[in-house]
This record gives sequence, structure tokens and C-alpha cells, in this order.
Amino acid sequence: MRNLALRLMYDGTDFHGWQVQPNGITVQECLQDAVQTILRSRDSITGCSRTDTGVHANDFCCTLRTESDMDCYRLVGALNAVLPDSIAVKSCEEMPLGFHPRYDCKKKRYLYRIWNSPQKNPFLKDYAWHYKKRLDADFLNAQAQQFVGTYDFAAFCSSGSSVEDTVRTIYLCSVVRNGDEVDFYVEGSGFLYHMVRIMVGSLIEISEKRIEKDTLTAIIEGMDREKAGRTAPAQGLYLDAVSYGEAEG
Amino acid sequence: MRNLALRLMYDGTDFHGWQVQPNGITVQECLQDAVQTILRSRDSITGCSRTDTGVHANDFCCTLRTESDMDCYRLVGALNAVLPDSIAVKSCEEMPLGFHPRYDCKKKRYLYRIWNSPQKNPFLKDYAWHYKKRLDADFLNAQAQQFVGTYDFAAFCSSGSSVEDTVRTIYLCSVVRNGDEVDFYVEGSGFLYHMVRIMVGSLIEISEKRIEKDTLTAIIEGMDREKAGRTAPAQGLYLDAVSYGEAEG
Repeated sequence: MRNLALRLMYDGTDFHGWQVQPNGITVQECLQDAVQTILRSRDSITGCSRTDTGVHANDFCCTLRTESDMDCYRLVGALNAVLPDSIAVKSCEEMPLGFHPRYDCKKKRYLYRIWNSPQKNPFLKDYAWHYKKRLDADFLNAQAQQFVGTYDFAAFCSSGSSVEDTVRTIYLCSVVRNGDEVDFYVEGSGFLYHMVRIMVGSLIEISEKRIEKDTLTAIIEGMDREKAGRTAPAQGLYLDAVSYGEAEG
Repeated sequence: MRNLALRLMYDGTDFHGWQVQPNGITVQECLQDAVQTILRSRDSITGCSRTDTGVHANDFCCTLRTESDMDCYRLVGALNAVLPDSIAVKSCEEMPLGFHPRYDCKKKRYLYRIWNSPQKNPFLKDYAWHYKKRLDADFLNAQAQQFVGTYDFAAFCSSGSSVEDTVRTIYLCSVVRNGDEVDFYVEGSGFLYHMVRIMVGSLIEISEKRIEKDTLTAIIEGMDREKAGRTAPAQGLYLDAVSYGEAEG
């Protein structure tokens, strides 16, 4: 048995998220089908996280447990040839059998893209949230620093999650403007269900003065989902990087 | 009667081109429906060119002949609100009744995007041609200068066109690399059916040594479609700018 770590990039627009489910095509299902085509076996595939419908990945890690002896380089090429154009396998690496893409993940980074212009941008309709009113990125960047630290983020978790421990560590938050786009980056030990999208929604509500500035720490501590902002739409969200071990920083 | 010039931007992925046709949804049809919703009349809409299925527009001009007295600014907002997210109206301008978006067009610029990397890019699957072998953009830029001038471009026109005069003037051609992307810009008095895509296909075939370098002028003069290169795929093509009159340069 081999345990192979595949790094993927995918456009989530046409998928019902990562995880196999009965009501729509998922990334995991496409990958399982591609593996079956290439290796002629229904090998087990495990992802580093579940992404929701419409959410994208610049970097996603999953493992493939297989008896195949095909070398990694050939496997990458073969999978890319049969996978849909919306999914790319970037690399394949041999890992110890005990390696688990979710449990062993040390750090994840998400990117949330906001198209911040009164003008529609047809090319970003599936790739960013269109928010028309001008945002002050520097102000939001200062506000976002309240997320940094180790907290119980229960107020930033949608219902429907079965997670028991809602304590997470956020290492870094930044909000930067690039022309008419405002990008929100957040890096942490892990994330709860909808956590990044609620963080973005809360920053937007500070901008709209629906949430008072400098109250995010109190909202975190209050642990009441009702006090945090709305959930920003899925299409702006990208799993941007997943890191394992110290070396990767 | 008023004659309004609308400037559009659209993502052509989900459309069967600009022109209304029986077998699929087109941009013109969506715009006609939006106008009917807003102005309650089936007003006549004329485009500056036909774009093919999957071809995009950063700048497209069409006219709307209407009896409505709605002011231009309000009309833009109202149309954008009811149009699909893949179509944006950028502006609306009152024009003389005799203005025609195709006949009065002085200059068009097209952009053709090539994703030039061995790696798949899921986010560009509908927005660029994926060409894996490394292209020498400077060499192709030098070759592309052979297109500049006034010629009969019959060799760069797909069959199925009913145009009789195949003489066109190309003012400018450039091939530039931006990281893993190679962009081809071409500006001319007008373009034949598939002309830009055949120009791009011919440059690629020079790169592949299927067409000898420095022979493009001879291929143009030979007026034989068989001697020019293949037609590059639709999704890399963007109508990038349309100009009327001297002032716009």
C-alpha cells in the first residue's frame, strides 16, 4: 500500500463542493472517477477539508491510498489528461502511511476576493463577491487584527457543523486593495464551518456601521452567532494554501 | 426616435455568440429581453460585430433605437439590474439617428490570450487557450509584424462568410509575455470571419515549424486558406476595443 499526497487546484463553480454527496457532482467524485480510469481500482481518497459549493482552491491536499506502482510524475500527467479542465493536479508526493491530510495539517490560508466597484465585472461573477460601495481597505485591515490570536470562534460558525471544539488560532489577517479589488487573507490553525465567510461578512458590516468598530473581540468572546455579521457569498472564497510541518513555514 | 449607443462587456462562455439565433441563448437576445422588461417595448438592437460562441468582449458597442425618454444614466442601472451577471452595460450615449455601430466603426482591437504553461490552469479554462509548449513571444512578435498593412486577407477567412471584399488594414500587431501568459493584440480597420483566430493559429504553427518563418506575407498574397494555420479556439478571444472617429485614436 502507498499513501500519495496530491496537490490540487480547482475552479469550484460547477461543483457541489469537495465531498462526495448524492445531489451533485463533487471534486472528490471526479478525482475518484479519474483514478479508476487510470489505475483501474476504486482507491480511497481523503481531503484536507470540505469546501462548499462554488468555493475554489488554489491549493488543496488530498491523499490517495493505492496498490498501484505507477510513478508520481506519470500519475500526475495521466490524471490531468482525464480530469475535467476545472480540476488540475499540481503534484504528487509519496508520504508515510500514517500521513493524514486533515489531521496533520498545521496551517491553512484562505483568500476572499471582493470586486469593489459600482461597475459589474462579468469575468468575476463566479470568482469574487461584487460589493459596490467603496471599502476602506486600510481601516478594515486594522479592524481585522482583532481576529488574530487563539479564541473560541463559536460566534463565527454556522449551525449545521458537528465540530465540538471551536477553539482555533488565527496567525495572520490582512486586507489589501488591488485596484478595484479588495482581498482578504487569513491564515490559521484551522477553520470552522463558514468561518472565513462570516469574518468577511462581519468586516463588511463594520464598514456599513451595522457592527460597531473595535467590537470584534467582544463579539468573539460573546460566542453568539447572531452578533457576528452575515455570511459572505461562496464564490469569493479560495482555499489558498495548506501547510504541513515546520519547514513549509 | 432616439439612437442610443450602449457599451457592453460580456463573458461569452455561456452564450452562442452575439447574434440572435434559434439554437441557443445569445447576448443580443438577453439584451432585447432586458430592454423589453425595462422599457416595455421590443426595440431594435444592432451590434458592431458578431462574436462566435465562447468569444468574450471587454468592449462591444451596440445601438438601441427607442421611443423611450428614460435618461441614459438610469437606463444603464436598470439594464444592469435585470441582465445576467455575465453581461454588463458600461455606458449609454445619445447618438445621431444615422449612427451605425458596424458601418461607422473606424477601428477594432482584439486580444487573444494564451495560457502558456505545462500546468493546467482551471481558472482560465474558459478564458484562454492552453498551449503547453513554451512560446518565444519576442520571436512571434517579430513574425506578427508581417500582418501589418493593407492586404486581401482571404487566406485568413474561414468559409461560411458571405463577405465579398476581403481587403482589410491591420494597424498594429503585438505579442507580449506576462508571466505564463502570452497575449496577442491586433488592431485593424475590420476583421474577416475567424481572422484573428487564424492569425494566432498561424503564429503558433510558425513556432511549431509547420509554417516556415518569414512566409506570412507570401501566405497572405497566395490567398489560399489551406496555406495559413489552423483556427485557434474561441475561448481565448476578446473583442477588446471598438473606436469611432478620430478623437478616440
